[in-house]
Amino acid sequence: MSEIARKILDGDVRALARAATWVEDGRPEAEGLLQELFPRTGHALTIGVTGPPGAGKSTLCDQLIAALRAEGKTVAVIAVDPSSPYSGGAILGDRIRMQRHHDDPGVFIRSMATRGWLGGLVRTAAEIIMLLDAAGRDVVIVETVGVGQGEVDIAKLADVTLVVLAPGMGDDVQTIKAGIMEIAQVFIINKADQPGADRLKIQIQSSLDLAHGPKPEIVETVALEGKGITEAIAAVRRYQASAADPDRSAKIWATRLREMLRDRLLDRYPAEDFLTAGRDVAEHRRDPYSILHDWLKSKN
Amino acid sequence: MSEIARKILDGDVRALARAATWVEDGRPEAEGLLQELFPRTGHALTIGVTGPPGAGKSTLCDQLIAALRAEGKTVAVIAVDPSSPYSGGAILGDRIRMQRHHDDPGVFIRSMATRGWLGGLVRTAAEIIMLLDAAGRDVVIVETVGVGQGEVDIAKLADVTLVVLAPGMGDDVQTIKAGIMEIAQVFIINKADQPGADRLKIQIQSSLDLAHGPKPEIVETVALEGKGITEAIAAVRRYQASAADPDRSAKIWATRLREMLRDRLLDRYPAEDFLTAGRDVAEHRRDPYSILHDWLKSKN
Repeated sequence: MSEIARKILDGDVRALARAATWVEDGRPEAEGLLQELFPRTGHALTIGVTGPPGAGKSTLCDQLIAALRAEGKTVAVIAVDPSSPYSGGAILGDRIRMQRHHDDPGVFIRSMATRGWLGGLVRTAAEIIMLLDAAGRDVVIVETVGVGQGEVDIAKLADVTLVVLAPGMGDDVQTIKAGIMEIAQVFIINKADQPGADRLKIQIQSSLDLAHGPKPEIVETVALEGKGITEAIAAVRRYQASAADPDRSAKIWATRLREMLRDRLLDRYPAEDFLTAGRDVAEHRRDPYSILHDWLKSKN
Repeated sequence: MSEIARKILDGDVRALARAATWVEDGRPEAEGLLQELFPRTGHALTIGVTGPPGAGKSTLCDQLIAALRAEGKTVAVIAVDPSSPYSGGAILGDRIRMQRHHDDPGVFIRSMATRGWLGGLVRTAAEIIMLLDAAGRDVVIVETVGVGQGEVDIAKLADVTLVVLAPGMGDDVQTIKAGIMEIAQVFIINKADQPGADRLKIQIQSSLDLAHGPKPEIVETVALEGKGITEAIAAVRRYQASAADPDRSAKIWATRLREMLRDRLLDRYPAEDFLTAGRDVAEHRRDPYSILHDWLKSKN
């Protein structure tokens, strides 16, 4: 076993941070390390936390961390920051709320920025979860901002996904429409002491009535005051117990293996080739099908 | 040249419909046909029309068709119906508004349902656009419902994308946030005679102020009364003239070729293999990296 793998298994936080950087930078050493560590994974509970900006996700995460630490669990947080020109840099500032845990070796916090390509981010997040799992973290929280497809894909990496909403955001119904209903296993109505919380709950419930499958629990919290946190964790564990489904886990891995294979197959073709061929097709010098035919022949 | 290709080039609508079915069903004959027809493509103007349900997209499309027909242009419409459990079947009903054109051979309307896998739909839509282009349609309108990633990907197939919004939907700002700002080349404020239209315009403008790049035009319409339609078409043509960029077209083809190659490479691996391997990894019998290693070796 390599030295870094041994250190990570021993709980060395600096080795863990270095390995996470290898993964983010796509360094070739990352793959061998993940292969070494894989047999030691499969123990962590992964909790996805998502929802629109302003719902109070960071405050909720902060409180979840505190409650889990009080139980003696070790925790890691992966905070994913979309760098859309429409969200700006404000979100990283929000993360300051979690900083009070920074001196606690039982809490490992890692921020990831998207830099545009969410597809790659999903892979990176999946691999960092594997590292944290092997390192013996009991709970890994993956916090994403927003409700786009990329965030949905990242949420699917988690064992249990919390969708955090809050009243008075003026966009309740639209948020519910935008595809996050499907990924919620537990709904959190945060800021539940504020006007509109009851209306929001009714809206969620009536949307759930339209949906198929098991109904997610709805938990009301006031994260700023630490209210409802124990109930949220209990709901997570109830879901986890009810969803212990080996088929689901096999399907998730089937999808992930397919994506990993796809990336590796495409890596064999230089990026310039696509641009050159794209120009040929755009200018009608060649048809796309004969180009594909040549590409497939060349690598087989 | 095959008989069906000749018929399509002659404007035979039934041959066109049959070819579109081949494409949708993934029939092997489709690819040879597209290869034959490719040299005859590149003339149609493709207009994407997207936006949230209720904004009046079908009515707008109906009016765009009428205006383009009055100019003597031939038109085709690809109407993409997401089959999300949250939208239901109401949208196909809406399409009835376009039915008045059904007896006009200068208008070809094709509905496509997503059946879950939007990725495949993008490819299918791209290939049907090629058929319609080769068949000599002057304008191809691609109408999609909703603002998810799949719809965004389909919108990118178009030369010019219209994002249709309407006042009083209570979700203006959220819709603007949800990633459709980036794809709009022309904004349509439909139902512009209704209260809130001015506020919506200000919201769009202030969102645009935050964005980089050229600012899309904003056109106000009352589609039900045929108001603003000429202006919308003029804005489309101004954008088209300003965006005549061979680099953009080369880049679009580069991306599409990459996706086509990816699908063909993955087609070589039976779907069962992914499930079996997924089960092995989920149950920790094997690590994902050694499986990938074997797969890559087996086909090379």
